[in-house]
Amino acid sequence: MATAASSTALSYARDNQKRFLEELKNLLRIPSISTLEEHNKDTEKAAQVCADELKRIGFEHVEIIPTASQQRPNAHPLVYADWLHAAGKPTVLCYAHYDVQPAEPLDEWKSPPFEPTERNNNIYARGAVDDKGQLWMQLKAFESLMKSGDGKLPINVRVILEGEEEVGGESIADYVRQHKDKLKADFALVTDTELFAPDLPTLCVGLRGLVYTEIEAQGAATDLHSGSYGGAAPNPFFALVEIISKLKDANGTILIPGFYDKVKEPTKAELEAWQRLPFDEEEYRKKEVGSNVLTGEPGYSVLYRTWARPTLEVHGMPGGFTAPGAKTVIPARASAKVSMRLVPDQAPEDILKRYTDYVMKLTPKGININIKLHSKAPACVVSTDNRYIKAATDAMHEVFGKDTVYIRCGGSIPIVSDFENELKIPSVMMGMGLPDDNLHAPNEKFHIPNFYRGIESIIRFFQLLGQ
Amino acid sequence: MATAASSTALSYARDNQKRFLEELKNLLRIPSISTLEEHNKDTEKAAQVCADELKRIGFEHVEIIPTASQQRPNAHPLVYADWLHAAGKPTVLCYAHYDVQPAEPLDEWKSPPFEPTERNNNIYARGAVDDKGQLWMQLKAFESLMKSGDGKLPINVRVILEGEEEVGGESIADYVRQHKDKLKADFALVTDTELFAPDLPTLCVGLRGLVYTEIEAQGAATDLHSGSYGGAAPNPFFALVEIISKLKDANGTILIPGFYDKVKEPTKAELEAWQRLPFDEEEYRKKEVGSNVLTGEPGYSVLYRTWARPTLEVHGMPGGFTAPGAKTVIPARASAKVSMRLVPDQAPEDILKRYTDYVMKLTPKGININIKLHSKAPACVVSTDNRYIKAATDAMHEVFGKDTVYIRCGGSIPIVSDFENELKIPSVMMGMGLPDDNLHAPNEKFHIPNFYRGIESIIRFFQLLGQ
Repeated sequence: MATAASSTALSYARDNQKRFLEELKNLLRIPSISTLEEHNKDTEKAAQVCADELKRIGFEHVEIIPTASQQRPNAHPLVYADWLHAAGKPTVLCYAHYDVQPAEPLDEWKSPPFEPTERNNNIYARGAVDDKGQLWMQLKAFESLMKSGDGKLPINVRVILEGEEEVGGESIADYVRQHKDKLKADFALVTDTELFAPDLPTLCVGLRGLVYTEIEAQGAATDLHSGSYGGAAPNPFFALVEIISKLKDANGTILIPGFYDKVKEPTKAELEAWQRLPFDEEEYRKKEVGSNVLTGEPGYSVLYRTWARPTLEVHGMPGGFTAPGAKTVIPARASAKVSMRLVPDQAPEDILKRYTDYVMKLTPKGININIKLHSKAPACVVSTDNRYIKAATDAMHEVFGKDTVYIRCGGSIPIVSDFENELKIPSVMMGMGLPDDNLHAPNEKFHIPNFYRGIESIIRFFQLLGQ
Repeated sequence: MATAASSTALSYARDNQKRFLEELKNLLRIPSISTLEEHNKDTEKAAQVCADELKRIGFEHVEIIPTASQQRPNAHPLVYADWLHAAGKPTVLCYAHYDVQPAEPLDEWKSPPFEPTERNNNIYARGAVDDKGQLWMQLKAFESLMKSGDGKLPINVRVILEGEEEVGGESIADYVRQHKDKLKADFALVTDTELFAPDLPTLCVGLRGLVYTEIEAQGAATDLHSGSYGGAAPNPFFALVEIISKLKDANGTILIPGFYDKVKEPTKAELEAWQRLPFDEEEYRKKEVGSNVLTGEPGYSVLYRTWARPTLEVHGMPGGFTAPGAKTVIPARASAKVSMRLVPDQAPEDILKRYTDYVMKLTPKGININIKLHSKAPACVVSTDNRYIKAATDAMHEVFGKDTVYIRCGGSIPIVSDFENELKIPSVMMGMGLPDDNLHAPNEKFHIPNFYRGIESIIRFFQLLGQ
């Protein structure tokens, strides 16, 4: 049960919901697309908005930390802040990211991606749920606690926000390695995941890792006419097709030698708990995927396949003629963006090496191949056996009025591995997204009641730990 | 030997070379890209320039013929003109096209594609050799003959110019079918091919056909995040890869059932003549293709493979994320632009059906496939056994001072088949391009002396036929 003090913070949060939402819209209007250099001013602006707000709320040591922008075009600043006056109480390191994915294909958006629009109790915009909405939940929980509590927080709070999550998070990974003392905490709070089902309080306790590459293929020295040269000039698309067709079989089994050697299966208890989750594969196929069948390895459930099995996908194949119409070109160059999702205990470096060796071996004559690494992160499974997960479980139970469930997520949050490996702290992944929120896709949304429930869950979480 | 009258026309052509070239530059400045709707005004403008010039020279019945622009976005006007007062002399139907290919990738051009630039006795521009430069050769030969011959031509001349050659030429095909009387002639002159080697007078007597398709694949209903859905959602790129990997084998042998059934081999005499041509496969690999090996069916020479063997190429695979950087999307849709070059006696309709059936059979579960046809044309081999080829052979021999050779071309000029099948006339394919002119590629060029030799060859060709 919430005490009088706790309900004060909750009341403050409830009384200010409209304003909180309008503030979020301001953040969503900034097209802080981290992968596109032309938006670097926008990522800077988003960082500034977050820093300004932390200062306004009452945080100390608020700092915009520039990263290595000379070396890498996709370097974006970190935002740090802290409030460390809850003597004897635990310290949390709060993480979220202010950068977003590109919005393409633009013509599939029902309202402009950077003009947040309310429809059916949802807010639609690129970054609504991934991750600006969930970043703003944290800040508004801090504000509610401080403004209703004489400028004090129930526990010690450090905040670190990044702007490179969608491009590999290299800067924050470096920063964590180099500033272990400054980021010292007992646990981390990461708000970048989702509820398993609407109204079902959920904590994510496992993430897949990622190796994201681009296979660059070159054949002839210049683009050639397929009439004149077809039958003699190598075509890099055929090399890519030849290679990719041998990366996995029709069942989705990945054919890279040794790829599965280190795969660790989930425990029996975890697999049984997954079976109790409210999940209907046929409904998922129809409502979420919308395809005529689901694909993937036979003998594994959908949850198993997407949470605890490694996968391999092609995201795009740039090169040649891609505009509408016909052009009879044999392109000199083409490439394929290929990524692999990893599970415990696959090491990204090991997988990258096996993949590279195999791709090189598959490369047909006449083609030069270069493999570019865009990003990598190991998989991570967090133990549920600690007081932070316990407090989060109880906080969400209170706010939602239902038992909290534990799930894994198929995506990657490399920072969770870094917190575990470098800072030796567990992460509480408390996310308020929904499975149909269209992450990374057109018409991304955030369900507005979940924005508010996220704020309240964080308030109660911190209050329980501060008791 | 040229007579006094003939040398008058040749003198006129020589005296006006500089002006002819400047006029060509004006035509090259118009970006008449037929496949891109936003350039429809430019194709209209190019048609107008040609019509105005024909009128100025002294042609009659000059007409800009609108085509079915309501039905098709890539419909562009035809230009017709005639001069038919050489009683008792043969009638030629002169063909060229004023439309051009897209100029992408723009950053590989050394000078802007629509700002014609002279370097090393070449003129660089999109359409320089394909086909505006060769179109203008015709008009300037007509002008030289008329201005030096009391407004008369040595033979009867009809002119038909099109603006859809690079997008399938549907309008002219329809027009030829429907206006056989209006286009009545003894033979056609087509200037859209190349010399086999610099300074070597060449007539092209065979062309490959074409079936150009786009395989459109759809998996999920919307783009999905590869973290959340990788392992369950079908990926259209894998379907395309799966299909394309089975369209031909590593040797370039096409695997579509029955694909080679109707292939007619060249005659022994033709194959022997090809062996006498000045051609070095190793030099071709290094200088023209620039790859580390050549590809294609073993046991066939490069000339055989590119002139008289059918081939299959992928030109581009639109869909997903193709910008620089990384995006973890499983795209809902992706497609592959796939074309096949055909040889006698493969019928495009038959090949398209076999291809469609095979692709449908290869389509993996979870993916819906649609095959869009961009264009088709049969292959065409012209008999060398007629007086028009003979006169052209002699005219080029005179202008170049060397024996004229006969070659085939790997590309497609569908109109040549239409002239043969509908009008029952042979085509003389007299082209002045060079193998390294970068057709359809960045830095397309036309060797300026070949522009002038083309004008002179047409002058002498018509004079010989008018004797």
